[in-house]
Amino acid sequence: MIEYLTGAMVLRAAMVMACGVFAVGGLAVASGHAAAGPKAQHFSLANGLEVVVIPDRRAPVVTHMVWYRVGSADETPGSSGIAHFLEHLMFKGTDKIPPGAFSKIVAANGGQDNAFTTQDATAYFQRVSKENLGLVMEMEADRMANLRLDEKSVLTERDVILEERRSRVENDPSSVLNEQMMAALYQSHPYGIPVIGWRQEMAELDRKDALGFYSRYYAPNNAILVVAGDVTLDEVKALAEKTYGKVAKNGKIVTRQRPKEPPHRAGVWVKLEDARAGKATVQRLYLAPSYSSARPNEAEALDLLMKIAASGTTSRLYKGLVVEQKKASSATGWYSGSGLDSGRLGLVAVAADSTPIENVADAMDAVIADIRENGVTQKELDRARDAYLADYIYGSDSQTQLAQRYGWGLATGQSVEDIEAWPERIGKVTLADVNRVARTYLDIDQSVTGYLLPEVKRATKAADDKRNGKS
Amino acid sequence: MIEYLTGAMVLRAAMVMACGVFAVGGLAVASGHAAAGPKAQHFSLANGLEVVVIPDRRAPVVTHMVWYRVGSADETPGSSGIAHFLEHLMFKGTDKIPPGAFSKIVAANGGQDNAFTTQDATAYFQRVSKENLGLVMEMEADRMANLRLDEKSVLTERDVILEERRSRVENDPSSVLNEQMMAALYQSHPYGIPVIGWRQEMAELDRKDALGFYSRYYAPNNAILVVAGDVTLDEVKALAEKTYGKVAKNGKIVTRQRPKEPPHRAGVWVKLEDARAGKATVQRLYLAPSYSSARPNEAEALDLLMKIAASGTTSRLYKGLVVEQKKASSATGWYSGSGLDSGRLGLVAVAADSTPIENVADAMDAVIADIRENGVTQKELDRARDAYLADYIYGSDSQTQLAQRYGWGLATGQSVEDIEAWPERIGKVTLADVNRVARTYLDIDQSVTGYLLPEVKRATKAADDKRNGKS
Repeated sequence: MIEYLTGAMVLRAAMVMACGVFAVGGLAVASGHAAAGPKAQHFSLANGLEVVVIPDRRAPVVTHMVWYRVGSADETPGSSGIAHFLEHLMFKGTDKIPPGAFSKIVAANGGQDNAFTTQDATAYFQRVSKENLGLVMEMEADRMANLRLDEKSVLTERDVILEERRSRVENDPSSVLNEQMMAALYQSHPYGIPVIGWRQEMAELDRKDALGFYSRYYAPNNAILVVAGDVTLDEVKALAEKTYGKVAKNGKIVTRQRPKEPPHRAGVWVKLEDARAGKATVQRLYLAPSYSSARPNEAEALDLLMKIAASGTTSRLYKGLVVEQKKASSATGWYSGSGLDSGRLGLVAVAADSTPIENVADAMDAVIADIRENGVTQKELDRARDAYLADYIYGSDSQTQLAQRYGWGLATGQSVEDIEAWPERIGKVTLADVNRVARTYLDIDQSVTGYLLPEVKRATKAADDKRNGKS
Repeated sequence: MIEYLTGAMVLRAAMVMACGVFAVGGLAVASGHAAAGPKAQHFSLANGLEVVVIPDRRAPVVTHMVWYRVGSADETPGSSGIAHFLEHLMFKGTDKIPPGAFSKIVAANGGQDNAFTTQDATAYFQRVSKENLGLVMEMEADRMANLRLDEKSVLTERDVILEERRSRVENDPSSVLNEQMMAALYQSHPYGIPVIGWRQEMAELDRKDALGFYSRYYAPNNAILVVAGDVTLDEVKALAEKTYGKVAKNGKIVTRQRPKEPPHRAGVWVKLEDARAGKATVQRLYLAPSYSSARPNEAEALDLLMKIAASGTTSRLYKGLVVEQKKASSATGWYSGSGLDSGRLGLVAVAADSTPIENVADAMDAVIADIRENGVTQKELDRARDAYLADYIYGSDSQTQLAQRYGWGLATGQSVEDIEAWPERIGKVTLADVNRVARTYLDIDQSVTGYLLPEVKRATKAADDKRNGKS
């Protein structure tokens, strides 16, 4: 049991970091903005909780997720990391659940549970046999309002998140570079602040910060309940009324307003030299709209553009850099469009052994310039669209992915109808749409290019030595 | 009279921008952290107003300044520009002073008045004949508490600041680059946000924002009164009691806390291509401590270091790039150490006609690498110290500069004693101190390098055309 719990804790940490990566790169969710397959039913409780039910009767199990419309981008300046810290502390206990017992109870009943924090949402979920749905709903509803924290366990958990930052960010040059690139890409918007937090701010977080954030954002009218699995709408409705229905609404919840990112006027380059870096790598991020912030059709066109440009071995980038020119050992790219306020286009290429990284970057630039100037072809678009729609259908086989689609969408401003109409909208994107967003958003002035370099030049090395306490 | 007023308004705008530049570069004030010459007397009123009196009996005039401990770095995220906007609106009027009459009354009495906003402080000042000191003190104390704003004049003035941003920033590629570099240099701290504000946020500022900022920060216990000129302590004390003494304290004023800038891990390069740019220029900013945030002696050593490295025609940078290698037509540098939370080292070089900008940048890097590795000489230090101390004595001849020294110092956490002990502290800096701060702070990982390039490459030009509405 202890062993399992340890595993769960690590998994919990891993999910946070997966979402940290998600903030930069893309996950299955980013390419899964719609449900193919089963349709969801939805309703709201009197206290404002939105409920989505997704029938899936293949096995007698359910996935139960609660999504809060709050993430790291909602933190008060100077308190970075508090959203993620609170997510950890949510496992500490209530009057009914002893400290640390939440996951043990789920596991003792044969289930699994976890949680993750992103820039825009924080989610808690359990996968349990259908007869245990009522149990996890009761427990999740309980900690929505009745979290109890003592000073000592808060400080202990703070050491856990600091260690998490050390091991997963600071010891990984690629994560450090991602942090620096995101900070350069978002000059004003809080997406430039890492989900896990800046170390010196994390080190000051305390019980008061955590409870303040909790009481400001954790409430039924700021949450979405998603239940997928072997269950009916009526069953979920009855259970939801009995559990979440008892939690009071928070009258002070307001629509989130973050500072908008000002238009950029100059391209940015970031160079990280670190002996632990492995092979030299070039990465690029471009500011782009997200599904929530884009004009109609643009986000769908960006999804297809980046599939054609950089995703998979038939993409322009891979074919050009890896197959034909042999300058890179790998190359990929993505559209990250799930953010509430902004999205990103991403490219990355790892230099082949003998190629200077500048040549890899030049080759990447040439691929992008060609797409901007000459466009992609109808054949490429058709193939990308087919591949995408197939991905969605496969994705719909996963109960977890299905639940995440709805949770993500609803947490970032979409409606159930928007989410389900995604395949239809993807089907309508034209070649002109794709080529227009390519010209508009693959704009070097709106980009940050990162170089990860294993060699360390003398000037930088002296500074490293200084930081490491050598003279 | 109207003509004079127009001049004053422009001057007011110019001061703001001078301070905008100050935030990046350095002004006389930055090299004037101490009074040589007359010593100040100081006391506080019961309501918390700090008062500094600097006797200067050379002419029957006085300089009267009120400094508020609030600047653009204290703005709520998303409301950038409100500190500067309020500074403009402070000229609108009170119950006693009709809208727009403040400056007219000062001028009608033979005086001049102005105001400026910086990241850390906002100041209002008048220079009047000694018999008019009571008048301006009464008027300034009145608008500390009794500002009246109507919706219409607020909206009219908003157009003024938007036009100010357009003409002074957006039409000046060098200002645009400075904004982008500052945004890259401060990833988390609000010094990365321009004093004048981001356009899209300025466009949303309203009367409520202005009055909210005013009531939060404008109060005697958040202000410093500086009177320099032909006046005695007793005279100022009597007038201050009669005017400012009547303004109520604000019990909610708290010590300012901004997010700390996290340590950077990678150098950053920003490239701005703009056909209006003139000659190609390379600029560099390094994060460094300020007088308020530095360890003892470090800020003084940084002042001397940058004098030796880059200030004036005998500096390392100028001699190397302009005189010897003839790669640059001009080259200079500075230490900007007056910020409350952070300072900067700056370098700039303009390419000589035939030199590619990369070669200028390489030559700049070589000068810095040489200083880091081999240090500067005792002779250079002695000369820099002498030149600095001479500057202070000259600066003390200016009543305005004297008043600014004390206002700045007190607004950013120094005491009158700190300010006056500056020449003594500069005198104690050793060669080892200077060489240590050179190795520590001329660190490429803590820097942003900006390129301002008149040529526009094709990819960027397409994006420019798009922004300008061409297809």
